[in-house]
Amino acid sequence: MRMLINVPETVVADALRGMAAAHPELTVDVENRVIVRRDAPVADKVALVSGGGSGHEPLHGGFVGPGMLSAACPGEVFTSPVPDQMVRAAAAVDSGKGVLFVVKNYTGDVLNFDMAAELAEDEGIQVAKVLVDDDVAVTDSLYTAGRRGTGATLFVEKIAGAAADAGAPLERVEAIARRVNENSRSLGVALSACTTPAKGSPTFELPSGELELGVGIHGEPGRERRAMMTSREIADFAVDAVLEDLRPRNPVLLLVNGMGATPLLELYGFHAEVQRVLAERNVVVAGVLVGNYVTSLDMAGASVTLCQIDEELLRLWDAPVRTPGLRWGM
Amino acid sequence: MRMLINVPETVVADALRGMAAAHPELTVDVENRVIVRRDAPVADKVALVSGGGSGHEPLHGGFVGPGMLSAACPGEVFTSPVPDQMVRAAAAVDSGKGVLFVVKNYTGDVLNFDMAAELAEDEGIQVAKVLVDDDVAVTDSLYTAGRRGTGATLFVEKIAGAAADAGAPLERVEAIARRVNENSRSLGVALSACTTPAKGSPTFELPSGELELGVGIHGEPGRERRAMMTSREIADFAVDAVLEDLRPRNPVLLLVNGMGATPLLELYGFHAEVQRVLAERNVVVAGVLVGNYVTSLDMAGASVTLCQIDEELLRLWDAPVRTPGLRWGM
Repeated sequence: MRMLINVPETVVADALRGMAAAHPELTVDVENRVIVRRDAPVADKVALVSGGGSGHEPLHGGFVGPGMLSAACPGEVFTSPVPDQMVRAAAAVDSGKGVLFVVKNYTGDVLNFDMAAELAEDEGIQVAKVLVDDDVAVTDSLYTAGRRGTGATLFVEKIAGAAADAGAPLERVEAIARRVNENSRSLGVALSACTTPAKGSPTFELPSGELELGVGIHGEPGRERRAMMTSREIADFAVDAVLEDLRPRNPVLLLVNGMGATPLLELYGFHAEVQRVLAERNVVVAGVLVGNYVTSLDMAGASVTLCQIDEELLRLWDAPVRTPGLRWGM
Repeated sequence: MRMLINVPETVVADALRGMAAAHPELTVDVENRVIVRRDAPVADKVALVSGGGSGHEPLHGGFVGPGMLSAACPGEVFTSPVPDQMVRAAAAVDSGKGVLFVVKNYTGDVLNFDMAAELAEDEGIQVAKVLVDDDVAVTDSLYTAGRRGTGATLFVEKIAGAAADAGAPLERVEAIARRVNENSRSLGVALSACTTPAKGSPTFELPSGELELGVGIHGEPGRERRAMMTSREIADFAVDAVLEDLRPRNPVLLLVNGMGATPLLELYGFHAEVQRVLAERNVVVAGVLVGNYVTSLDMAGASVTLCQIDEELLRLWDAPVRTPGLRWGM
């Protein structure tokens, strides 16, 4: 086992202690596993709360800060957080204007956020929810009814966070989040499996020289397994799979996301191929992000997410953001 | 071979095309392999140029921008850039106030930057050089006479870049860069080897269940190989090795750097252990950075860099910076 850890049981708590020491602008409740903007609640603003299994960092905790999430709830590795975390987060960030839960479409997350919404409403907190389900690889999967939520989560959290920051009411923030998700599609490719601390061995078998097209962010099976392809061929496959489903008429935001162990050198090269395919398909790219944002522990590979935008969404995307994982304009 | 590439021969050029498309604020000369701030030369300011083998991204190209480097020259993977690239970069960024070359201490880089300095001076460009040699693991190494240059490069480039941005003259920027290097020490640990595209197999053999203490950023041998240790034990070893050499009396800047394939979840947990050791040794931490900044392709592992600072260096560290890899305050 090649892991920089103490014991599997304390991986998440250890990481939260390390986050707390690195980011004094966040309040990290290690015991209760809630990461909150230090200045929360922000008066007269809608708050955004997300969360999910750990192992996808910087998602979600790294996206807490002005212009994006108000709080995040990390679960155990690849395991949904519990409702108690979500209620605690909602109570910490609600200014009275309500809270939007951003939920990736995995069975555990959906159930727990549903229960948390009920509990929070019992405490007098107004809650709305948006489900992120952008992954075109498969419908229904190992942990999912319907499509999995992956890279689009970043677009939803950033753009809806900007709307909340601009003072939009809850129903408007929710509608924008929904619009971002409906206009986003992703496809991921694994060149190697990932290893969870608890298991200590790869989550699935992927022989060297093969890749998994359409892999999920927990190593869930994708569409097909093939012999190793070039960066050019992978870009063709991934972009065409996304475009076949999205058919954008407007410009798009592009996320070329590393799964964790793929060097930035390779990721930039892959990005060049993705841009080539998009140009060949006459898709206009209005904004780009290349890096490790929605990861799968030590998996090698990459994913492509497109989000069809309009002027309002682009303005919200460009708005200032200040989080550990995403920062510009302030 | 598990790489997201086309062919090994085009890896660097492909990555540069991808960088160009991702970062319109940079001018990327793919053919000549020079990455330059689009607004260069900046009137009345000293310029900073660095470079080195590719495979350590975001170093150096990802650190080009206001408040840090003026230009970077990427070589082939793990191979020094050539003098022609450095001269071209210097000519592109020199405002007449001179250029500081930031050179990591590897034989090829040192020779080529020396030659480039002579050639640039022949063209009427005033050049100063600073050598970065912070790695306490070994003196003399596979590609080095003396100590290797690793994590401190980030501190030198950021802090000297801020001094240049503030209008300091060349000799002052050089002196500050030298002061940062002299007050910085690093130690790295590998949990797995890395694989270069050209070789296609690991650069060294590291059996599962063992680690290399004091590894270089090209996989050069370190001080010793041991059976797998916990995050806590590795932090004790790394921090004590650095402190034994640095013996800081002032507060320090801390870089907990991922080698490339270590998940952020593990890196934050390791950071918590590094902070624990520093507290036990009564070292005050004035600033922290946790992430993948000076990488070694797909190597798993981490390095610790400390830089002893004073008020001036801390002010320069905190000054605004806007690059693809490091950004705050603007």
